[in-house]
Amino acid sequence: MTDTTTKPKKKKKWFKRPTQSDKPKEQPVEKNASTVAADISTATTSKVSPAKKKKRPAKAQPVPVPEPGGEKIKIIPLGGLKEIGKNLTLVEYKNEILIIDCGLSFPDDEMLGIDIVIPDMTYLVKNQEKIRGVVITHGHEDHIGAIPYLLKQINVPIYGPRLALGLLEVKFKEHRLNNVRMQRIKGDETFQLGVFKIEPIRTTHSIPDAFAIAVHTDIGTILHTGDFKIDYTPVDGQVMDLHKFADLGEKGVLLMLADSTNVERPGATISEQNVRKSLENAFMNCKSRIIVATFSSNIHRLQIIINTAQKFNRKVVINGRSMLNVFAVASELGVMNVPEGLVIDLRDMDEYRDDQLVLLTTGSQGEPMAALSRMSSGEHRKLDIQAGDLVIFSASPIPGNEKTVSRVINQLFEKGANVIYDSLAEVHTSGHACQEELKLMHNLVRPKYFIPVHGEYRHLKQHANLAMSLGMPEENVFTMQNGQVLELDQIEGKITGKVQAGPILVDGLGVGDVGSIVLRDRKHLAEDGLMVVVVTMDRSEAKVVAGPDIISRGFVYVRESEDLMEEARIVVQKSLDQMEQRGVKEWAQLKNGIRDGLKDFLYHKTQRRPMILPIIMEV
Amino acid sequence: MTDTTTKPKKKKKWFKRPTQSDKPKEQPVEKNASTVAADISTATTSKVSPAKKKKRPAKAQPVPVPEPGGEKIKIIPLGGLKEIGKNLTLVEYKNEILIIDCGLSFPDDEMLGIDIVIPDMTYLVKNQEKIRGVVITHGHEDHIGAIPYLLKQINVPIYGPRLALGLLEVKFKEHRLNNVRMQRIKGDETFQLGVFKIEPIRTTHSIPDAFAIAVHTDIGTILHTGDFKIDYTPVDGQVMDLHKFADLGEKGVLLMLADSTNVERPGATISEQNVRKSLENAFMNCKSRIIVATFSSNIHRLQIIINTAQKFNRKVVINGRSMLNVFAVASELGVMNVPEGLVIDLRDMDEYRDDQLVLLTTGSQGEPMAALSRMSSGEHRKLDIQAGDLVIFSASPIPGNEKTVSRVINQLFEKGANVIYDSLAEVHTSGHACQEELKLMHNLVRPKYFIPVHGEYRHLKQHANLAMSLGMPEENVFTMQNGQVLELDQIEGKITGKVQAGPILVDGLGVGDVGSIVLRDRKHLAEDGLMVVVVTMDRSEAKVVAGPDIISRGFVYVRESEDLMEEARIVVQKSLDQMEQRGVKEWAQLKNGIRDGLKDFLYHKTQRRPMILPIIMEV
Repeated sequence: MTDTTTKPKKKKKWFKRPTQSDKPKEQPVEKNASTVAADISTATTSKVSPAKKKKRPAKAQPVPVPEPGGEKIKIIPLGGLKEIGKNLTLVEYKNEILIIDCGLSFPDDEMLGIDIVIPDMTYLVKNQEKIRGVVITHGHEDHIGAIPYLLKQINVPIYGPRLALGLLEVKFKEHRLNNVRMQRIKGDETFQLGVFKIEPIRTTHSIPDAFAIAVHTDIGTILHTGDFKIDYTPVDGQVMDLHKFADLGEKGVLLMLADSTNVERPGATISEQNVRKSLENAFMNCKSRIIVATFSSNIHRLQIIINTAQKFNRKVVINGRSMLNVFAVASELGVMNVPEGLVIDLRDMDEYRDDQLVLLTTGSQGEPMAALSRMSSGEHRKLDIQAGDLVIFSASPIPGNEKTVSRVINQLFEKGANVIYDSLAEVHTSGHACQEELKLMHNLVRPKYFIPVHGEYRHLKQHANLAMSLGMPEENVFTMQNGQVLELDQIEGKITGKVQAGPILVDGLGVGDVGSIVLRDRKHLAEDGLMVVVVTMDRSEAKVVAGPDIISRGFVYVRESEDLMEEARIVVQKSLDQMEQRGVKEWAQLKNGIRDGLKDFLYHKTQRRPMILPIIMEV
Repeated sequence: MTDTTTKPKKKKKWFKRPTQSDKPKEQPVEKNASTVAADISTATTSKVSPAKKKKRPAKAQPVPVPEPGGEKIKIIPLGGLKEIGKNLTLVEYKNEILIIDCGLSFPDDEMLGIDIVIPDMTYLVKNQEKIRGVVITHGHEDHIGAIPYLLKQINVPIYGPRLALGLLEVKFKEHRLNNVRMQRIKGDETFQLGVFKIEPIRTTHSIPDAFAIAVHTDIGTILHTGDFKIDYTPVDGQVMDLHKFADLGEKGVLLMLADSTNVERPGATISEQNVRKSLENAFMNCKSRIIVATFSSNIHRLQIIINTAQKFNRKVVINGRSMLNVFAVASELGVMNVPEGLVIDLRDMDEYRDDQLVLLTTGSQGEPMAALSRMSSGEHRKLDIQAGDLVIFSASPIPGNEKTVSRVINQLFEKGANVIYDSLAEVHTSGHACQEELKLMHNLVRPKYFIPVHGEYRHLKQHANLAMSLGMPEENVFTMQNGQVLELDQIEGKITGKVQAGPILVDGLGVGDVGSIVLRDRKHLAEDGLMVVVVTMDRSEAKVVAGPDIISRGFVYVRESEDLMEEARIVVQKSLDQMEQRGVKEWAQLKNGIRDGLKDFLYHKTQRRPMILPIIMEV
């Protein structure tokens, strides 16, 4: 890479770019690459080949020429497009399928009562014999959260970073899944899965052990960046392997799929080291307790907080189920470095002065059930907020959470705490690349084709624009939808079809049993409540034997609206009388008659439209 | 004002400050003040006194010395504290009450199905004979929206700026309120309301005709800033009357209540003129239709858009009910300057080319029913989005609306529109003062006491901190709650009590009939839906005659869950059998038995907790 201009004036040639390296690198890039033993006995299809130990070429590799009419490679995203969440991408070639990530998303406001959302897996179940495995880029929920639901349907091996596998094991226990075939992936360790040669490349993100995945096939290389930002001074010292990306670009990449989350933000993300400094400043002169809320999965941040506590002679109390979970997994795996005796039990807090304590807690998003929220509202069984406490939100509100976060901040201030948040100090940084980092990635990899992923439509669109502004021809950029099938070879790329895809709603134990009708009813009930009308009728004569009785919920406070309820009963009685005179005997007709009369009456009286549920009992 | 330092190192003396004016101003500040005729015949208590035409003193006025044990002035905020919305402040002195503003707020996420929220007016109704009138600072909903609900309970005169009164008239028509006593207030026109001398002072805000209100009494002056920012180059040329604030500060202000909305933002708001430039840039090279979404109440912005359309030879089509409303009122009152023939009817759009058109529309907050949202989702009857349209969001999402706005932006991009929003360009500015503007206000007015208003607790708290950082003693700053009573004189201020205050929920025609029980039921129904169990029983023997029948809504999609429903029926049947054997005959006991058995069964099967509604019909 000699050309460091990120915005070339004229269009560049993509992919097959003449090299002009004035300083050819001599170090073999993959010198640490070694063979990974495939210790998964049942995964018969996963062949392992030793990574090639050869020098990085000074010239670009010749492009493999596809046979005319030869097999193309298919890319099928089943999740992660037009949304931030439930990432799942398929690479299909020569009747073999590789899955990259299998995550969940959280329900939007319309999905009342829904716990989580997972991708539709119909296509995977149908084609299960083709699947060679799932490769995980990193351990975030939107990349691993749907794996238990996949494994309940089909048995496939999981390849992932150590930390992601550790977090998955906790999930498998909860879901009572046994004997899952898992294998760790590492940077510099290439392995074969069927026709796919998988090369994990170390990146930096808000969780350690994060990888981009290069998939080498005999038709070309697919690079999936995973989630990344470029942190030149990461907490764990594991710098992103930019040389690998440069090397791939040099050799030629057929297709890149890249993270679009922060494409609307100019510049570059700040390093976790800036966050460290801000936190140290906050700790420096604090004589009171310090409470830090952050994402439990942001292990870099946890490490910084641990280190800062150590530096300022404070013990750390960990609080909140998911925080305890992650802490346990990360410490056990050695992903986190926790000095002996630094973390103490909540029950031993009394033995320390306020200025000797840090509480590390969940609830940075204002989630009502999280530890910090319960402390701030006085509903936590064991902890409360003391006047003078310093509370640090080391996280930004995820879009949609602004109001709940604000509510917690207000409550904390009211309890006399000092609160540091958001823009008041550099106490958080994003895990996703901003514009200049994305430009660097495009510039290093210079793929022939590009799919923006991991974003709402606005982000995908802006990322496509960014790629084109760097010189990529429009016809090589594919702004896709979940389920679309992109077929590629060296000559052209084309969307050729669509497979079943979409959100599957999980509510309690039910997977997919809550659909649009149930949600519509929930919305209706939420808006205006419900009125049940029960009438007992004689089967033969269609005469009222008992009732009508009326019960309402979520409509009006009945004790203060007795008159209204009595009037409503009379309205129903009248409808029934009229229908009896007209000789109506069909239950369905009777129900409609009751509903229509009551609906008009209630709207006239209240301008509300409760759900009306007429029930006829036969005797 | 000779001291321009906004952050003095040592504490200043507040209120009674020795003047050191090195340049005494000679112009009488109130030279345009004139008598306002009280043309409200029924408002017998409103006396009008001519504004005093005297020179501004070179020295500070002597402080009125209160009689020992003399009457104090009471400040009672009934809304607007610990919230942004439903502003309502009382000033009570010598058995007379002045109301400043009477606004509504919009429901938060917990308030399912609620339309609007108004302040509890119990105290006003109880003390109605003391009330001399309502003075309105400006025409925004959170300052005028609850007036119709007040007037339905008590008859009081309304004093407000021309535009606010115009907007109120529309509301009065909708609420069928006739013969409301209204009188216009103007800058430089002081008038007497009972013991209160009212002095409106021109400010700048996101709506024209906005005022701060100085209330002069023989015990001292209360200044309520209303909502303001400092725009030195406002669209209508009506610069904020900073001299008046300086003059008040010079004469001595007992208490200031000031807008806290933007206290967390450093610096100063940008001028509407910057927005004008950004919009002109956007219009400059655009060859397609332009659609601009903004707040209908932001008449300055509407004026800019009108002017820009004119400049670039485009006709303007106005779209959305509230936009049409405001346009009609503002043009009629001459608050807005609309060139003849510029605004055309939607039906005449076809006569113009795309590059001759601007659509001005509601929906900048992604409200599902607003014009822009319906256009973006293809549900608008008359308008749709064309590929190439330029859509400008000339508004920021209000906290909580981020996701709905984002949804509309995504849809617009998908329809092929270009979208300019938010941080991409300076196409919006706030109407509320940021830190440096607030400091200027404190510095000019230098009141003895201060109440931060118009903010969530975090804002009130930060505004109190800001005042103290400028040298105000802590004991003179009152971070209050709605309903608290602050009693003041020149010697001390103290919170002395509490009156009834709180949110009253409006749902359709119902005012206050939806309370916590109804909301709790709606939330329960929204989360997990409902299961109704009906049994018809013989009255005398407590034997089942018909049923149990089970109907569910919002729980599971019944057609796919027939087995579950049948099992549930059997569970209820068993409960009934057991209770019959045990001789249970109490309806309440029977219902509990049905509920408990079914609840456990459903939770075990689904991990959901629908509302269970057992109904027993007697025959």
